[in-house]
Amino acid sequence: MNKLLETIIENNREWTQKGKVATYIPELSKANPNHLGIAVYTIDNEEFCAGDCNVKFTIQSISKVIALMLALLDNGKEIVFSKVDMEPTADTFNSISSLETRNPNKPLNPMINSGAIVTSSLINGKNGSEVIERLLKFTRKITNNPDIDINYNVYKSEKETGHRNRALAYYMKSIGIIEGDVEEVLDVYFKQCSIEATCKDIAKIGAMLANDGILPWNGERVIPRQVARIVKTIMLTCGMYDASGEFAVKIGVPGKSGVGGGILVAVPSRMGIGVFGPALDSKGNSIAGWKVLEDISKELDLSIL
Amino acid sequence: MNKLLETIIENNREWTQKGKVATYIPELSKANPNHLGIAVYTIDNEEFCAGDCNVKFTIQSISKVIALMLALLDNGKEIVFSKVDMEPTADTFNSISSLETRNPNKPLNPMINSGAIVTSSLINGKNGSEVIERLLKFTRKITNNPDIDINYNVYKSEKETGHRNRALAYYMKSIGIIEGDVEEVLDVYFKQCSIEATCKDIAKIGAMLANDGILPWNGERVIPRQVARIVKTIMLTCGMYDASGEFAVKIGVPGKSGVGGGILVAVPSRMGIGVFGPALDSKGNSIAGWKVLEDISKELDLSIL
Amino acid sequence: MNKLLETIIENNREWTQKGKVATYIPELSKANPNHLGIAVYTIDNEEFCAGDCNVKFTIQSISKVIALMLALLDNGKEIVFSKVDMEPTADTFNSISSLETRNPNKPLNPMINSGAIVTSSLINGKNGSEVIERLLKFTRKITNNPDIDINYNVYKSEKETGHRNRALAYYMKSIGIIEGDVEEVLDVYFKQCSIEATCKDIAKIGAMLANDGILPWNGERVIPRQVARIVKTIMLTCGMYDASGEFAVKIGVPGKSGVGGGILVAVPSRMGIGVFGPALDSKGNSIAGWKVLEDISKELDLSIL
Amino acid sequence: MNKLLETIIENNREWTQKGKVATYIPELSKANPNHLGIAVYTIDNEEFCAGDCNVKFTIQSISKVIALMLALLDNGKEIVFSKVDMEPTADTFNSISSLETRNPNKPLNPMINSGAIVTSSLINGKNGSEVIERLLKFTRKITNNPDIDINYNVYKSEKETGHRNRALAYYMKSIGIIEGDVEEVLDVYFKQCSIEATCKDIAKIGAMLANDGILPWNGERVIPRQVARIVKTIMLTCGMYDASGEFAVKIGVPGKSGVGGGILVAVPSRMGIGVFGPALDSKGNSIAGWKVLEDISKELDLSIL
Repeated sequence: MNKLLETIIENNREWTQKGKVATYIPELSKANPNHLGIAVYTIDNEEFCAGDCNVKFTIQSISKVIALMLALLDNGKEIVFSKVDMEPTADTFNSISSLETRNPNKPLNPMINSGAIVTSSLINGKNGSEVIERLLKFTRKITNNPDIDINYNVYKSEKETGHRNRALAYYMKSIGIIEGDVEEVLDVYFKQCSIEATCKDIAKIGAMLANDGILPWNGERVIPRQVARIVKTIMLTCGMYDASGEFAVKIGVPGKSGVGGGILVAVPSRMGIGVFGPALDSKGNSIAGWKVLEDISKELDLSIL
Repeated sequence: MNKLLETIIENNREWTQKGKVATYIPELSKANPNHLGIAVYTIDNEEFCAGDCNVKFTIQSISKVIALMLALLDNGKEIVFSKVDMEPTADTFNSISSLETRNPNKPLNPMINSGAIVTSSLINGKNGSEVIERLLKFTRKITNNPDIDINYNVYKSEKETGHRNRALAYYMKSIGIIEGDVEEVLDVYFKQCSIEATCKDIAKIGAMLANDGILPWNGERVIPRQVARIVKTIMLTCGMYDASGEFAVKIGVPGKSGVGGGILVAVPSRMGIGVFGPALDSKGNSIAGWKVLEDISKELDLSIL
Repeated sequence: MNKLLETIIENNREWTQKGKVATYIPELSKANPNHLGIAVYTIDNEEFCAGDCNVKFTIQSISKVIALMLALLDNGKEIVFSKVDMEPTADTFNSISSLETRNPNKPLNPMINSGAIVTSSLINGKNGSEVIERLLKFTRKITNNPDIDINYNVYKSEKETGHRNRALAYYMKSIGIIEGDVEEVLDVYFKQCSIEATCKDIAKIGAMLANDGILPWNGERVIPRQVARIVKTIMLTCGMYDASGEFAVKIGVPGKSGVGGGILVAVPSRMGIGVFGPALDSKGNSIAGWKVLEDISKELDLSIL
Repeated sequence: MNKLLETIIENNREWTQKGKVATYIPELSKANPNHLGIAVYTIDNEEFCAGDCNVKFTIQSISKVIALMLALLDNGKEIVFSKVDMEPTADTFNSISSLETRNPNKPLNPMINSGAIVTSSLINGKNGSEVIERLLKFTRKITNNPDIDINYNVYKSEKETGHRNRALAYYMKSIGIIEGDVEEVLDVYFKQCSIEATCKDIAKIGAMLANDGILPWNGERVIPRQVARIVKTIMLTCGMYDASGEFAVKIGVPGKSGVGGGILVAVPSRMGIGVFGPALDSKGNSIAGWKVLEDISKELDLSIL
């Protein structure tokens, strides 16, 4: 397997030249566009990796999956889906128009920015600090990595320049979707996006989801099977921005990408996969990471359909 | 199994009271809103059914699945997806705005009306009559029912009143997505929507898809595995109008509904299901049929995630 | 005055280099982009002109003003404005989205394509031929030119390629805004757009409007003062596509342009102006014609505000 | 004249029953819906009034006219219109979609909320306090009323609940249209909306605009004629929210309404009019105030077209 992963990484490294690293904040633009790595973690507790699988990156939108799990654990699905819908959309991830034109006025799903900000606002905690602490603690548990933490430089950049997300959040405040203090909610959101991890960490999150909510390394159930199912389904239909449909057709498994270059994949009953390649395509997905996943999906027949 | 199906039908029959039959054409408004039926056809060639499973109805949007198969067989996926995208959308099935505002200008997927009209325009045939003949012949084969035919009263109604679809088609003609004669393309589309079938016929189509393209009753491969995969994936992400995401979360299998009240379901490697209940919910899906599928999905643990 | 007009034409002829003639139909693309002409017709019955003021061109969208007058004469304002609104819009002239997203579903004003097609459908006549005959007769009267006729090559081109307008018309048929046969309504519309005239003809239409509905050359009232007022107001707020606001600020008088390169202007209580320059700016207005009007507005202090 | 005004007020008072006072902030909902008043101030320095013309109200969106004058005085039209367009729109006054979908991304005009927030951000002042001081000073001068001040209860309400405007402002910050601190810009905006005045004050602002920028009572020029022209033109095409076109057709003069119930009107070369009636129609304009203006426009033949 390690051999296969290495071959796939080498075969696709040239794709890193065809994308561009995110530049909307200075910290992200410092990423090395040539990086490309993959890690696989099976539900039988085996780990494989190749390429730059030990390089840390900020998980960005991958954190939306983690926040959704906590929000569902804290509130149950009825409350969560009364505030954010579960419909895929061909709008861009930071679209504000759809909030205005849809009826009822709620974000279309928890994988676009507006929906993810709502999701974060639903996590329990007496203040923002407590919320982010719970998010970090949960992330450390499902990655089996006590060193997981926030990259504060990225966080500060996000906070200073995150005016588009502010617009989304204040819009939702104005229509009653967000109840608390907007800046406090956004602070949690900017921090969760700035959590740093490696492919290996991401692969373990995928393995837990693939294993229906049970950590493969110690048999502990961290989320109910139904929560795992909901999260994987929403990843499948909505996880790759406005290329989610194409990802489902071409790769055929639940995935979630982030503009930091990471992609989280959960192959039901088989394995989690973490991919990292900061050069992005025009829709914000890791360009080489996507190609790596196409190859591994074909080689291992991963598609669930 | 027949017992289980009967129980589920009885438990959900009250839901038929909460929906409304389609009224946009007189023929459809004559449907009996109390009808509710289900048929299951396994890949092991067993058939089960309960309720009004022998009542004929027009398949309407379920025909989009059949047309997509033929278009892929005739052209290959590269050509088909150069004309119609594969992205799910939260827009309504007959939306015209998204054609104007998206870049590039192509229908978002083959399960909304605009995309389906394009799909039909891509089926080989020296004229419209030949195209619809091929469609009928293919439908007869995959339902194992030589009596499948068009309901000409419904067809005439559709043709006379289908101005919204005409608008979509002429818009696509104006941007070069449709190449042939618009009225001829629409004639095929109105006819394919007016094909009549029963739950049992629909279940067999589902069984063929569940069986990766092979007819369970005689082992004949009618479409390549890859075409079956693409079709099932697009059903999963786009098949239930703007409730596709919710269907994926709650039922968890590829499905396609029609405003005639039918729902086609393919449970990978297990079975096809056909449901019929002409009372519709506000999004155009059979209201009781949806509930029946929720129950059977729970009972038989059908979800693929 | 003729001297002034000649100076202005010469000063602005270089602007013709910066635009492009319409190319959506072959006939229009044959126009000479260097043409530039102006005619002025005062309510005191004086005529002045300079440049290419005897060159014929198809009036295209300028015909929307003529059709609106007839529709108001035939139906009264209540009926007309129950079918088409009177609100300016920043959408493009051929936008279809706004028909879908606005509530109520009616075209925003009679100067965009959708609204103009409705307007034409409201003109009395037992069939399309009679409608276009009435339109031509009325146009001949208000231009004092019995030779006004349709350019049949342009008309045929429009009809063959007018799929975008077909989409608009069928959409409006589907929502009940257009009542008659769509192709017959469109035939009138394509013919009215293909009416040929010169700057001098156009200036006379403007003079009639400037004169509150009375033909300056014979004192005959052709439309009531109130109809003249409504038409001029809608020209002021909506006449120059999505540059209407800028035209009002910079030139300050009611105007209506066409992609054939013509602009009709009515300066209340003073004069009509016809301008012709087929090289268009990016919004579809004559680029040099606009500049000519800016200069003459400044020189003669034409702004009504 | 006073007699005429009184008759018109009495004839239209019943219309106050058909509208509703604004309720988005508690302070505004306390308004007396039966109030109805009018004041006329001619360029010959005569004042007339009738009804509740001494009742104070917050000017709300009427302040957009004042801010636009100052922004033009401070920056010139090139700079102002590089940040905000001058095109009328059929979108609602607080639309955020159009910011996202238009190209280029700038507010359509200074009379909708997004455009007005930009306008306020362009007024000189070393901080928000200085800007609002200048706005107040200017307002006192053009109303000839040194007592003009802010209603601090309304201001506090606006600031606490103005999340929709915050969303607009942060969106514009994210695309570079607003340069300074968003909360400081919004503070100015909320304060300017909370300026209190009577019909008589508003009529004087109208008289100054009608008089091309010269105060009728002392002959002082406060803005250049060209600025007065631009402001009046934008009022005419954009001043009454998405009913601007209808107002132009039915009343035919530049106007600007506010949700506090006021309407500012400038009749070129004749008079200013201030109307007050807090019961609003569905588009946010004073329902009886509009009727009063229809009547007075007919009686005095005010239409400029």
